[in-house]
Amino acid sequence: MIRQLQAGIYNWLPLGLAVLRNIEGIIREELDKMGCVELLMPTMQPAELWQESGRGDYGKETLIVTDRHDRQMIYGPTNEEVITDIARKHLFSYKQVPLTLYHIQWKFRDEIRPRFGVMRGREFLMKDAYSFTVDEESHLELYNQIFATYLRIFKRMGLKAIPFSADTGMIGGKLSHEFQVIAETGESQIYYADELETLVQQHDPDIDAIRRYYAMADEQHNPETCTVPADKLRSARGIEVGHIFFLGDKYSAPMGAVIQNEKGDKVPLQMGCHGIGVSRLVGAIIEAHHDDAGIVWPDAVAPFKVGLMNLRVGDEQCDSACEFFYKEAEKRGFTILYDDTDARGGQKFATMDLIGLPWQVVIGPRTAAEGKVEMKHRATGAKYELSIEDALARLAV
Amino acid sequence: MIRQLQAGIYNWLPLGLAVLRNIEGIIREELDKMGCVELLMPTMQPAELWQESGRGDYGKETLIVTDRHDRQMIYGPTNEEVITDIARKHLFSYKQVPLTLYHIQWKFRDEIRPRFGVMRGREFLMKDAYSFTVDEESHLELYNQIFATYLRIFKRMGLKAIPFSADTGMIGGKLSHEFQVIAETGESQIYYADELETLVQQHDPDIDAIRRYYAMADEQHNPETCTVPADKLRSARGIEVGHIFFLGDKYSAPMGAVIQNEKGDKVPLQMGCHGIGVSRLVGAIIEAHHDDAGIVWPDAVAPFKVGLMNLRVGDEQCDSACEFFYKEAEKRGFTILYDDTDARGGQKFATMDLIGLPWQVVIGPRTAAEGKVEMKHRATGAKYELSIEDALARLAV
Repeated sequence: MIRQLQAGIYNWLPLGLAVLRNIEGIIREELDKMGCVELLMPTMQPAELWQESGRGDYGKETLIVTDRHDRQMIYGPTNEEVITDIARKHLFSYKQVPLTLYHIQWKFRDEIRPRFGVMRGREFLMKDAYSFTVDEESHLELYNQIFATYLRIFKRMGLKAIPFSADTGMIGGKLSHEFQVIAETGESQIYYADELETLVQQHDPDIDAIRRYYAMADEQHNPETCTVPADKLRSARGIEVGHIFFLGDKYSAPMGAVIQNEKGDKVPLQMGCHGIGVSRLVGAIIEAHHDDAGIVWPDAVAPFKVGLMNLRVGDEQCDSACEFFYKEAEKRGFTILYDDTDARGGQKFATMDLIGLPWQVVIGPRTAAEGKVEMKHRATGAKYELSIEDALARLAV
Repeated sequence: MIRQLQAGIYNWLPLGLAVLRNIEGIIREELDKMGCVELLMPTMQPAELWQESGRGDYGKETLIVTDRHDRQMIYGPTNEEVITDIARKHLFSYKQVPLTLYHIQWKFRDEIRPRFGVMRGREFLMKDAYSFTVDEESHLELYNQIFATYLRIFKRMGLKAIPFSADTGMIGGKLSHEFQVIAETGESQIYYADELETLVQQHDPDIDAIRRYYAMADEQHNPETCTVPADKLRSARGIEVGHIFFLGDKYSAPMGAVIQNEKGDKVPLQMGCHGIGVSRLVGAIIEAHHDDAGIVWPDAVAPFKVGLMNLRVGDEQCDSACEFFYKEAEKRGFTILYDDTDARGGQKFATMDLIGLPWQVVIGPRTAAEGKVEMKHRATGAKYELSIEDALARLAV
């Protein structure tokens, strides 16, 4: 699925890549739906832009590269400078905003001790969005829209993501929330009001209400001052999967990204930045959805919908039943992984449980003779013996 | 569409990105159709692998980065080493091959003088495929399949690509062809038998026949020894967009990527590598398809199918006619760019010609009142005045 090439840097083999693409697809759909515009910035950034913005004093995690002309470049860990440079060249009038631009691109952070697999890799795929408005008030509205879109994105991936008011750290700015997925193996301890679990899963979440509920990371949580009664307070492990910031004019002012407001005055753009860890989500989803036998992919991100196992490869009836099922399922738009290897049944079952596709379809000599298949739903373990036609219909539910 | 960030490094704005994605899509479809398998390797490679393969003596074009632990990494210009490392960990038996793995990933070559825009950028998007077989004979068969797939890919993009027998250069190997797109502004001079232009556009191209025809780059062409009669010899400018190599065991032998053959012997994998310049193709297509007014995108790669121009924004009838057309066209699956800016008609026409979408649809007060639209086909200049319904039907042809 994924194989480490060197510390914190990974090869994405076909199954892992398929999950990554599904996650990208969900993020893209939800952002496009709210009117965001996709573009693509390069991985390599000119160091001069970082001098301009005032972030020229890079930490050790920033990968700095000197090219053959002795010019410094940075393998982008985020893109505030580049997008501000684009904004100052393209945005002139209040009529062009609110505008949210985003891209999905590889980033690099030279972590001293990469760990937790793809959850904290050095080269990682991130969606970073940058929002622009003419004033603070309209920016806070946009902030809440992005907040709601984030909740929808994580929900579609089968995740419970709890938002926390957060430090703005090295990114800077005025307001910030991070989103933590609840998973036993999460890297940080979190505390929150139990109502949040329900509120974040609502179709049209009330962001102002959500933001009023108690949610604290370990460092900030204080049992003495906590306003939530003990029986309503949840404590869990969390994995950070998203982070949104209202930046104000932190980048636009020093870089001269100004825009004309309705009165005709030139004012610095109000800016926000909003990240989702795309490759990290692959790890977070596995942490949130597995059992002792392996992964249990939520439907929306599973690399294939069906795993088809031929229990007697080479047997004419088994082979042709499998091929028939494969073609029919494909025709109806289902994605299928076909295990036609020589491995033994027990091994095939174990592998299929491990990679965790939503449905398993098994064809052996007996079922092939009867024109039937065995089906297993990975998440519930429920088993069915059905005709091929009924099995295909079952997949469509 | 595309904006330079620094020498040879570009931001892809929405229109440019859409073209890039369409090109990727065509490549992916054709490769998947021939059974290739997609994965994704990271941009950063460990330098040790290059020592192992014998390419440790990097040229100046290779971007070398030292991380915080003082380890050398390379921003991959190609991926022979990494894929050979994957192959030696996953391929053991002749039953697993022939296998062609590919990825579409950003690469870096620190060109001393980047030029021709995205045609010779330093950070560029490339599709690189790597093929593996157990012996030379089966590899040559696979080579021809990839050759044919390349011709289909370029043809679908509206390009005439001529294959040339080529030097193997720093990649190495035993056999190689490059594919040059014919365009007036091409960077190299090429000579070839005129039959080739027809042969490469056939649905099921005969690769062995094609390979026997005369095709030479400037350096190799010799009028004295050229076997093609003058009236059959074409001379043109070309842009290299693809390159395929049969490598033999150049990488697999030093890196110990061996496989068991049918006799049970362990032999080095026979290997090939096959590149297509994805971001470069954007430039090549523009060079091959433009006129004095701007770009003329071939349908298959156009960022949108239709450009819709509202000639009187704010006029109720114009606005509602445009919105109706937009929604109906979208419903039928056409992609549309809607120009609802305040710009004047002449400027809108000029911009729309410049960005070169296949169809232009114009709605002004007169046509809106009559329930009609004006349509222009960008490539031919043909104009139509049609009812909205007929216009939509015309788009579907």
